[in-house]
This record gives sequence, C-alpha cells and structure tokens, in this order.
Amino acid sequence: EKSFFLIAGPCVVESEELVMEVADKVSGICKNLGIPYVFKASYRKANRTSASSFTGLGDETGLALVKKVGETYKLPTTSDIHAHEEAAEAAKYVDILQIPAFLCRQTDLLVAAAETGKIVNVKKGQFLSGPSMKFAVEKIKNAGNNKIILTERGTTFGYQDLVVDYRNIPWMQAHQTPVVMDVTHSLQQPNQTSGVTGGNPQLISTIAKAAIATGADGLFIETHPNPAVALSDGANMLKLDLLGGLLEQLVKLRAAIV
Amino acid sequence: EKSFFLIAGPCVVESEELVMEVADKVSGICKNLGIPYVFKASYRKANRTSASSFTGLGDETGLALVKKVGETYKLPTTSDIHAHEEAAEAAKYVDILQIPAFLCRQTDLLVAAAETGKIVNVKKGQFLSGPSMKFAVEKIKNAGNNKIILTERGTTFGYQDLVVDYRNIPWMQAHQTPVVMDVTHSLQQPNQTSGVTGGNPQLISTIAKAAIATGADGLFIETHPNPAVALSDGANMLKLDLLGGLLEQLVKLRAAIV
Amino acid sequence: EKSFFLIAGPCVVESEELVMEVADKVSGICKNLGIPYVFKASYRKANRTSASSFTGLGDETGLALVKKVGETYKLPTTSDIHAHEEAAEAAKYVDILQIPAFLCRQTDLLVAAAETGKIVNVKKGQFLSGPSMKFAVEKIKNAGNNKIILTERGTTFGYQDLVVDYRNIPWMQAHQTPVVMDVTHSLQQPNQTSGVTGGNPQLISTIAKAAIATGADGLFIETHPNPAVALSDGANMLKLDLLGGLLEQLVKLRAAIV
Amino acid sequence: EKSFFLIAGPCVVESEELVMEVADKVSGICKNLGIPYVFKASYRKANRTSASSFTGLGDETGLALVKKVGETYKLPTTSDIHAHEEAAEAAKYVDILQIPAFLCRQTDLLVAAAETGKIVNVKKGQFLSGPSMKFAVEKIKNAGNNKIILTERGTTFGYQDLVVDYRNIPWMQAHQTPVVMDVTHSLQQPNQTSGVTGGNPQLISTIAKAAIATGADGLFIETHPNPAVALSDGANMLKLDLLGGLLEQLVKLRAAIV
Repeated sequence: EKSFFLIAGPCVVESEELVMEVADKVSGICKNLGIPYVFKASYRKANRTSASSFTGLGDETGLALVKKVGETYKLPTTSDIHAHEEAAEAAKYVDILQIPAFLCRQTDLLVAAAETGKIVNVKKGQFLSGPSMKFAVEKIKNAGNNKIILTERGTTFGYQDLVVDYRNIPWMQAHQTPVVMDVTHSLQQPNQTSGVTGGNPQLISTIAKAAIATGADGLFIETHPNPAVALSDGANMLKLDLLGGLLEQLVKLRAAIV
Repeated sequence: EKSFFLIAGPCVVESEELVMEVADKVSGICKNLGIPYVFKASYRKANRTSASSFTGLGDETGLALVKKVGETYKLPTTSDIHAHEEAAEAAKYVDILQIPAFLCRQTDLLVAAAETGKIVNVKKGQFLSGPSMKFAVEKIKNAGNNKIILTERGTTFGYQDLVVDYRNIPWMQAHQTPVVMDVTHSLQQPNQTSGVTGGNPQLISTIAKAAIATGADGLFIETHPNPAVALSDGANMLKLDLLGGLLEQLVKLRAAIV
Repeated sequence: EKSFFLIAGPCVVESEELVMEVADKVSGICKNLGIPYVFKASYRKANRTSASSFTGLGDETGLALVKKVGETYKLPTTSDIHAHEEAAEAAKYVDILQIPAFLCRQTDLLVAAAETGKIVNVKKGQFLSGPSMKFAVEKIKNAGNNKIILTERGTTFGYQDLVVDYRNIPWMQAHQTPVVMDVTHSLQQPNQTSGVTGGNPQLISTIAKAAIATGADGLFIETHPNPAVALSDGANMLKLDLLGGLLEQLVKLRAAIV
Repeated sequence: EKSFFLIAGPCVVESEELVMEVADKVSGICKNLGIPYVFKASYRKANRTSASSFTGLGDETGLALVKKVGETYKLPTTSDIHAHEEAAEAAKYVDILQIPAFLCRQTDLLVAAAETGKIVNVKKGQFLSGPSMKFAVEKIKNAGNNKIILTERGTTFGYQDLVVDYRNIPWMQAHQTPVVMDVTHSLQQPNQTSGVTGGNPQLISTIAKAAIATGADGLFIETHPNPAVALSDGANMLKLDLLGGLLEQLVKLRAAIV
C-alpha cells in the first residue's frame, strides 16, 4: 500500500444527516485520490472540559449511526471508548477502537479493547514520549491482540499550548505499529479560561504536511461542513470544503518520499 | 484549625502487616505534632507504566485492609478509584475518594465519586493548569457534592521530568477548596526507558517546605519502612524513619505563616 | 549571618530622584528587619523585547547615580552588564556585577566580569538547569575569582510563561555559591504580542515565600513607588509601599527554617 | 528560485584542510542538485557549555579561511558573531552574519550587524516564539537593513531536550523573511551532566523533511567527514558521506510542494 490512510469525520455524532453528509463527501474524495478511508465519529464525549458541553445523542444511537455509515458507504469505522465496560459493546459496531490520550495508561481499558479482537488505536498521552508508548503496545499484545495503531496528538508545552514533536513518528514506528498523526487535536490550545479548548485551524496543513514528510502511515482529521456551528471541537475542525485540496497536496508529498 | 493535614501511607496495600506498621508509626508522630492524619493506600494500581508491575492484592482485600486501619487507629482513610463503577464500592470502605491525575477530566468518574457523598480529592492532571481545575470542581458540585479537595502533583516539563508550579496553590485555592501538595508524585521522573518511573527522594523536603510556605492546606506523602523493597513507587517514597523529622520542620514553618 | 540578603531597587535608573527615594525607603526597612541590603538598578537595558523601549539615561550617568546611592546610604550596589568591554567600567561604580540570564553562557563576558575582582552574580538562563550552572561557576573560578552568586529567575515553560523550579535552589547551592531568587523576573510572561513582557505581580509573595522556605540565601525584588508609570518592567515590580509587609513575613519564615 | 538553499559546513574552522574538503564536496553535491549553497563555519565558539572546550584557531585566521573557501569555490559564506564589536570585522570576510540564538535579543549586536549592510541571519532563541521574532526583525530594519533571514533551531522542552515546533516556519515567514531550519542544533540535548551537549543524529532526516514539507526556505546542516573526531558539536553533525543522499530526497520533497 503506497498511500497513507485517512481517519476522518465529525468530532461527535451530532445527527444522522451530518454523519451521512460527511461520509458521502469524504469517501468520494478518498476514492478519487486512492486513499483508504476510515470513518470516525465519537458516540460520546466523556472528558469535555466543562460538564455543560454536549456529550452525544446516547451511546446506542451514536454507535448505530456510525455502523450505518460504514454499511452504507462500505467503510471501516472507528470511535473512541472511555471505560473498559464499553469495549465489548462498541466492538459490535466499529472496526477500530480508539483509546483517548488521557486514558492511554489505563491497563483495564487497553486490555478490554484488546480482548475484543478489533484493531486498537491508542493515542499518545500529552504527558508521554513516543518511546514510552511501548508499554501500551505491550499491554495490548499481552492480551493477545497484535492489531495496534499509535496516534500522535501533541505534547503538553506550557499550560495553554501543545507542540507536535515529529521525532515521535519514527520513535513510535519502532514499536512495529502504524503511526497516525491526529492533526485536529494537535492544534488544541488547552486550559483556556472559557472552558472551551481553542485552536489554530489555519495550521492544519502545516501539521499534516510535516507528518506525511516524516513518514506517518495515516492522518486523523476531524471535518465538518460548518465548524462554526459544530457541537464539539469546532475551533479545530477542518471545513469539509477544504479537505479535498489538502489531501491532493498530501498525496503528491507522499509520492515524493516513498 | 491551624495545622496542615497529612495524607500518608504506603503507595499500595502490600500486606496487612505493612499497612498496620505504617499507620501505627505515622499516627503516633501526627498525634505528637498536632497534625490531622488521613491514612492512604491504593487498593489497586490501574495505570502502571508496565503491565508486569504489581497491581494489588485484590480489590476487596485491599479495601478491607484500608478500612481496618481506619478502625484500628481511629483515622479517616483514602484510596484512589479508576472507573465510575468502583466509586460506590470503594465508598463503603474509605472516607475520601481520590481521583488520579490522568483521569481528572473523566466526567463519569467525577460524578460517580461525587454521588457517593464522600469527600472527593481530585489530583490536577500533569497536562492541566490550576485555574482550569475549576471545571472538575464544577462537575462535582453539579452532582450535588461540595466536599472537594484539589491536589497538585507536578506538571509535564519535557518528557522525563515534572515541575511543581507553586502558583497552582493560590490558583486552586481560589476555587474555594483545600489544596494538597502531593510531594511524592511531584518527584516522579516519567518516561524512563526501564518502564519504572524514577524519582528524586532527596528533594522531598524541598517540595514540602515550599508547599507549606505558599499556604498548602495539606500534604500527601507516601512512606514505607523500606522503600528499596516497596512493590510500587519505591523510587519516590520517603523512608518512614525520616517522616517525623521532616514534619517537625514543617510544623515550625507553618506556624511562621499563619 | 542568619538573615537572607535583599537585592532591590527600580528596574532601571530613571532619575536621581527615583533611585534616592527607593534606596532611602528600602534601606530603612532593611535596617529595621536586620536584612543586609544591596541596591540594584540597571544603567542600561540591552535586551528589551522591542527597540522602541526605554534603555537608560546613558551609561556613565546611570552608573554614577548607582554609585552615589551606595555612598549616600552606605550600601553595596549592583548593576548588570551586557558585553565584556563593559565589565571594567562598571566595576568602578558597583560592588556586584550581574550577568543577565540570556548571556550566562557567554564565556568572554563571564571572564571579563571575573577579572574585575568584583562579586559576579550570574542569572540562570531560562534554557538552563541548575546543575548545568556549574559550567558558569567554573568559567569564573578559572579566571581567578571565587566570589560568585547564582540567581534563579524561572525557566521556559511553553512560549508565554515561565515556571520556577525550586529544585534549582539546592541544586545550585551544591556549586558552593549563595543562591538568590529573582522574584520579579520569575513572574514575567514572555512572548506577548504587544512586545511588552507581562507579569503577575500578585504572585510575588508566593514566589518569595517558597524561595525562603527552600533555603534561598537572597532575594532579588524590583520595586518602584508607582509601577504603573515605571519605564521598564512595570508589570512585575512590587509597589514600594508593599515591600515592608512582605519582608516582615519572610523574616519570620526564615527564622523557622534555620 | 524553486529550490531551497543550504547553509552547511563544519561547526567550527578546525583547519584549512577541513574547510576546503567540506566545501569541495558539498559544493559539488549542491551543483548537481541545483541547490544554492552558502558555506558556514564558526571562527570562534563563544558560548561553549564548558570553558575547556575548543573555541577556534583565532579570529583572524578563522575568518580568513572562511573567506578563502568562498573565493576558491565561488560561494557565499557565513559565520556567527557574538559581540557588537565583531560585526564590522567579520563583515570584511563573510556575506551573511549569523546571530546566535542565545543573543537574539541583544539590541546592540543586532544593530551592529545590520549596520554592516550584510545579510543578517538571526536564530530564534530557545526561549522565544516565532511570532515574537518580529522584534528582532524590527530592530534590524530600524537600523536600515532589510536583508534578514530567521532560523528555527528548537525550543526549550524541559531541561535536557529541545523540540522543533513547525508552526514557527509559517509564523516567522509572516515577518516577510526567508526562514531556515537549523537541523543540527535542533537535535541538541542540552544540560547534560558531562558538559558536552548530546544529540540524536539519526533524526536528521526527520527534522529536515518536515522543514521542507512545511515550506522552509533554507536548511542549515553542519557536516564533517568524521563527526566522531570533530572539535565541536560532533554529536549532532551529519557525516559528510550521507549529505548527498539526504539532499536528493529533500529535492524531491520540495518539488512536490511548490
């Protein structure tokens, strides 16, 4: 496989209409460009900064909509889980279980995800180095599952900023797993006084290009037809209209390094 | 109350003998010095770096021993929980439920802890600022519980070090909660290649003195009769023999600032 | 000597009136409290963020006024130098030559300061650890001067913040030098878009108390009768009226640790 | 001009033989690949961690050898200056005056460099953000010189590591200057207990590829026929034999983004 793969979708399942629209457009773009595409949407947001933020439509509704997207567009799908008891249930609906960065050290959660037999995509904690993700890999392998993806999403850099350290791409690939760059969350600006995590969407192409150039196997990009009205992470999502142009550039860049 | 309080004990419940020995010695020291004492030991370690590290004697055994310590020595007790379904069970045994730093953004866990009616002690994530802990406080208050403690335990500072930012003490006290300095974990050195988090135990008194001087309401110190053979966090725990001398100095320091 | 010493004054020599007023008030306070006092004011600001900021009255005028303060109030004095050729000239006027943090690795500057025979006070670079200040100490000792002070002034913590790591106090004292906490500059918030470095003056007592509690030998505090109209660093300077109350608390704290 | 340019050479002028060998090989490679080449070597190392490290052959000897390289191979040249009084002298020998990162806030130095009329290449301090380099740019422009280059060389990330933040490339290009990635020094690991700054030479291609992908106008790479015996920065320099292969990849990458 010469192309990178793409994990993309809206941050959270807001409605059937939204997930279908995004999947339709992104799958069309990816088919044209030869990019393997995995549909992503969260069915629940469990660690919003503020308790008053939107957290989803209900777990079963959210998961069922993700599954419906996968069946309708013949796409593999992924969503994130937050507690070990969610693993088996979510595994009925999606192909890849994503472990949130804050939870990447929780052994019970990693083991429960591993035991579903699904692919497990672990996001590197903002407090962890790429080399130390080997312990997450080992926890999953020891539970009998070798299908592992690791995702870079930025590292704590003072209180109100994250920095992407591209050394983590080769460092995590040394664990013999594909490595994904989560472009969207790498641009978060945490600890804002408003309780709404800010961002820098104009830097999306900078983060993505550096990832492809340094050999990332996949990209994770949250996208929305209208980020300004999104119910979560609107500050960082890429406007859906801009995704095609960005991916075209990245496909050219990828061709230059393989 | 003019003294600071002390949360102390061995990192994990290794055996009945160990927890009784520690509680006996520490409660004696604190009685002499007029320091309110809360016995602490984890009944399970859920996020060890490496899956092969010791994780406990079994939840019920561990919790029951913590409770027995409390009854034997007439002490309030605390232990940490790692998933929302543990809250109600742990609340049968301990007086303060501690939320680990990595999990301080997990709304379900905070709410479940709050709903037990016990005191909830939330450790500040290594990736969070003191001011942004207000959202954890609000999640607990919104669940109907106003008995909240916040704990500083260091902030990510490059991959292999933590730094204690003492501005967080007044910043977190501004949330109208007591603030504890976790001296032990502030000295961790994460992301070591061995998978065993290192530390700097000789700096324990530096961290503790600065905390008392800047107005911390409590201290959290893990202590063990022989840290070199401890089953968890031995690199950071204070040798039990040294605790009395340190606390004497801190009591003098406290008297100078109130 | 049981007390800590104080290095204090306005950031820059703005006028004779100002330096005399500050020296008069601060020397009175320190005499009352038994604190050895060193008068400080910069005769030139060589590394202002922005070229349009005030840089001084002229070197000779500035230095002569510092010397006059020393003679008038029988105080040792200090000022900072920025290039090796300034060392010999400044040494005619002041007792302690201060090396700015950005310049603490410049061998020529350290050697020139050392060769004056004056006390050399080197500020730890925002990019350096306390242990690595041993190389600055060695450069000065190799030039034949053993009269060295090291000063902590915060470490880079993301782009727009500094953090004070109190481990640096014992770590730098291990180089067998007195260690000073620069309270004022530790509170800078660099890289502000305005080109004027911001600050948090309300945290001055937090920074100072933690320093005394952890054994700092001296404090550095810039003070001004009216920081709001100061020509440099107004955002961080302590209002002169508040200095006496702060020092009283610190003297009590010091007494509790020696 | 479609290619990026290359600033390369040995860290310091060790001998005529060395500088000629490096210039000969690198200029041959660059001619083949269509890369504009600027020869770089320091004539003096002014801020070595340790006073016992090698600092050069003497200023005039070093500068004269740099100039001889330029004349022999018809190359523009560059070297770094460390004090304002060096600017005019160095300008007689080289085409680009480089300002070290630690000194990027020293107004006198920037102004003296600007006044030579030469191109001034300012390295971003490890403690500065890309946006705040606008003040360095303004200081040079105000001195009447618009020929400015800015160089990224990593940012303080804990004590013993640097991280390259690729957002700084577009952020510094917003100052209307070409931006260079200093691959070599971005890989330094400062504050090592040995007093010799360590490094990660195997990551050179990661740092360089990400820079080209994100639009860097130039690269700075120190190279040596045998880094293991180099008199400065051997831990980070690229072995000369490996330079051609790396540049070939980078030329392909560059073609994919323009």
